Amino acid sequence: MAIRLNYLDGNFEQQFAAFLTTKREVSEDVNAAVKAIIDDVRLRGDEAVAEYSARFDGIDFATTQMRVSAEEIDAAIQAVEPEVLGALKVAAVRIESHHARQRPKDDIYEDTMGVGLGSRWTAIDAVGLYVPGGTASYPSSVLMNALPAKVAGVERIVMVVPANGGKINPAVLAAARLAGVEEIYRIGGAQAVAALAYGTATIAPVAKVVGPGNAYVAAAKRQVFGTVGIDMIAGPSEVLVIADRDNDPDWIAADLLAQAEHDVGAQSILITDDAAFGEAVEAAVERQLKTLPRAETASASWRDFGAIILVPDLDKSIPLANRIAAEHLELALADPEPMVAKIRNAGAIFVGRHTPEVIGDYVGGSNHVLPTARSARFSSGLGVLDYMKRTSILRLDAEQLRILGPAAIALARSEGLEAHARSVAIRLNLGDAG
Amino acid sequence: MAIRLNYLDGNFEQQFAAFLTTKREVSEDVNAAVKAIIDDVRLRGDEAVAEYSARFDGIDFATTQMRVSAEEIDAAIQAVEPEVLGALKVAAVRIESHHARQRPKDDIYEDTMGVGLGSRWTAIDAVGLYVPGGTASYPSSVLMNALPAKVAGVERIVMVVPANGGKINPAVLAAARLAGVEEIYRIGGAQAVAALAYGTATIAPVAKVVGPGNAYVAAAKRQVFGTVGIDMIAGPSEVLVIADRDNDPDWIAADLLAQAEHDVGAQSILITDDAAFGEAVEAAVERQLKTLPRAETASASWRDFGAIILVPDLDKSIPLANRIAAEHLELALADPEPMVAKIRNAGAIFVGRHTPEVIGDYVGGSNHVLPTARSARFSSGLGVLDYMKRTSILRLDAEQLRILGPAAIALARSEGLEAHARSVAIRLNLGDAG
Repeated sequence: MAIRLNYLDGNFEQQFAAFLTTKREVSEDVNAAVKAIIDDVRLRGDEAVAEYSARFDGIDFATTQMRVSAEEIDAAIQAVEPEVLGALKVAAVRIESHHARQRPKDDIYEDTMGVGLGSRWTAIDAVGLYVPGGTASYPSSVLMNALPAKVAGVERIVMVVPANGGKINPAVLAAARLAGVEEIYRIGGAQAVAALAYGTATIAPVAKVVGPGNAYVAAAKRQVFGTVGIDMIAGPSEVLVIADRDNDPDWIAADLLAQAEHDVGAQSILITDDAAFGEAVEAAVERQLKTLPRAETASASWRDFGAIILVPDLDKSIPLANRIAAEHLELALADPEPMVAKIRNAGAIFVGRHTPEVIGDYVGGSNHVLPTARSARFSSGLGVLDYMKRTSILRLDAEQLRILGPAAIALARSEGLEAHARSVAIRLNLGDAG
Repeated sequence: MAIRLNYLDGNFEQQFAAFLTTKREVSEDVNAAVKAIIDDVRLRGDEAVAEYSARFDGIDFATTQMRVSAEEIDAAIQAVEPEVLGALKVAAVRIESHHARQRPKDDIYEDTMGVGLGSRWTAIDAVGLYVPGGTASYPSSVLMNALPAKVAGVERIVMVVPANGGKINPAVLAAARLAGVEEIYRIGGAQAVAALAYGTATIAPVAKVVGPGNAYVAAAKRQVFGTVGIDMIAGPSEVLVIADRDNDPDWIAADLLAQAEHDVGAQSILITDDAAFGEAVEAAVERQLKTLPRAETASASWRDFGAIILVPDLDKSIPLANRIAAEHLELALADPEPMVAKIRNAGAIFVGRHTPEVIGDYVGGSNHVLPTARSARFSSGLGVLDYMKRTSILRLDAEQLRILGPAAIALARSEGLEAHARSVAIRLNLGDAG
């Protein structure tokens, strides 16, 4: 049974504040082990990568190529069920066309005094995409991470995926092909992150590393940050559903469980204005859990972090939702649009009873890599901008410098930076530079 | 004397590669001390902040208010020299109007099948701006950090600045007023970062902390990251000047020294196609150093990290510049535009002989907070987007769900996520959810 909170309880604020700060992750300190692996890969390159891959993935690069061949990708596509391949294509087309709208425009202009100013966007030259192995090796994540990079114009997208005994999920290779990724290495863990960041004889270094992974991968990303860029380090997933009494409790329960089955640290929250509806959803959750393959994970998540919050009217849910700042927010309401307008903090909003969050995981078109753990208060989901960078451009002629220069000189001197002042003054014959 | 590299040397590539990876910063490990301060501020709030402020800044909050009053800001404006105040106003107007063009547009649309999709931008609710004390207390940085937040629409901008014995640089307070920042606390160090991130009785918490600071501030920002957002952690500044022989060597030398005077770890690089011009610049640097107030810093920087790179023709400088990925790139050329188009990696480009980098530090209009240490390969300068976040919006009706749902179900089942599949299937009457 999930946690119950009632807005009208005298100590609701304290309970809610405590609920907000509940930690849902056990952070494993693997920093020292990861540092040793990274240092070793920097020193010994491919040789170190091969040794760690033999030890952790049981793969021998003396007999198996590190790089996945084009023929293997061709074969993988043949091996994927046609229904799944078709679904991946539907997803790829929709994701690509949505993200194409995120391409930023350059803004190069002259201001009122004729000074040339500009913001110019360019794609990152090379990006590395980490894909986990085993059961978390999701083809949908390959699409979500790789397609925005493709849309951004990244010239080189490199994928790494650990392959236990050499095997990679064929659907992952098929998704890579659909996303235009052809440079794929069957390596994983901290050694793969190090190889991407620093390069080896086989793998040229990239400028940014993205994608989800276990504690070792997350620690490795943190450690190589600065040498390369990284994306956010995702925490366990979460959904907040705001639902009125006119929903089918079974639909809402199914949505809560879809989140809960991800991870024992996942969180599913229902806010409703009807106590009986809340009870009906709780009952539906318990009933549905009985036949769920991942019931063990889902029930632990629901028991430990699930919550049903009762509010006297649904407007009261808005400030709560903005404080929760959920990764996924479902508005299962008759007239959801007014509430959409009042939500400030959410990774993604799923509007109305017929938009279960799962659609956004796969085929909605928007990205499923979204800010977790309340970070939607200050950050955004993955998008095209994450694969680009902006360069400022400034251009003055002699006359414009004569007009603006004195203000720069005054500020430089007031900040005690005389060489700054002189770099302008010398061009205005306002004194030499020594 | 700076390092000399010649493109035509047989081992240029090795020398250049080594030059690129030269570390210019001594990283001080203050993590344990910072963690103790943060934990203490979380536990004891204002009391802890007051104790650390007494110890590190020699300020007693029993006799001095922690918050700077409106009257103090009024008085500070009176105390700033009119020429400096006027220059700050010029800068503020230009920075604000340039950044206003960076405001992102929402994109809410229906796709060809009528599915509602959207990217909606909202400002971060509250932002904390760290301003260093002492000689590095720069009013220009206040404008550069605060104005993009104001343009973004951040409702609450909080400034913290350590005040030795209670004193704050009046120009810093004047810049805050010009940028619309009225909530200012005279605190600094890790205790200020902790107060912003976790809140105290006096200071409500913010959602993001930005601004430069010493090793303690940088470590504190890293440690509170996740609880709040942070901006980049800036390293020592750098400039790359690409100059032909037709420049006045004194102008170029002045530009190199403007960067070098910042910090012993700063880096100034000249690339030219004329050896005699390079020698003339070196001679001018040595000459100008003789009268520079910050000569000790500038000459250490120039000696340890300065470089003159000779290329057989200026086109050869383009791939070098893209690998250096300088924070600041000056193109002091007769016809710079073709080269502007070929530069992919730079924080900001200063075009032509009359655009010294210093103009961009103060009054150009573009931001002077730019990616250092080669991170322009994967990141951008500070801008309006850093104070906003994007929420995805998705809306399907029953019929659209009927069309797209089966692809989502297929992908969910292929990924072993049955609860995901059921959350869609139950809405399509394709089987109940248990």
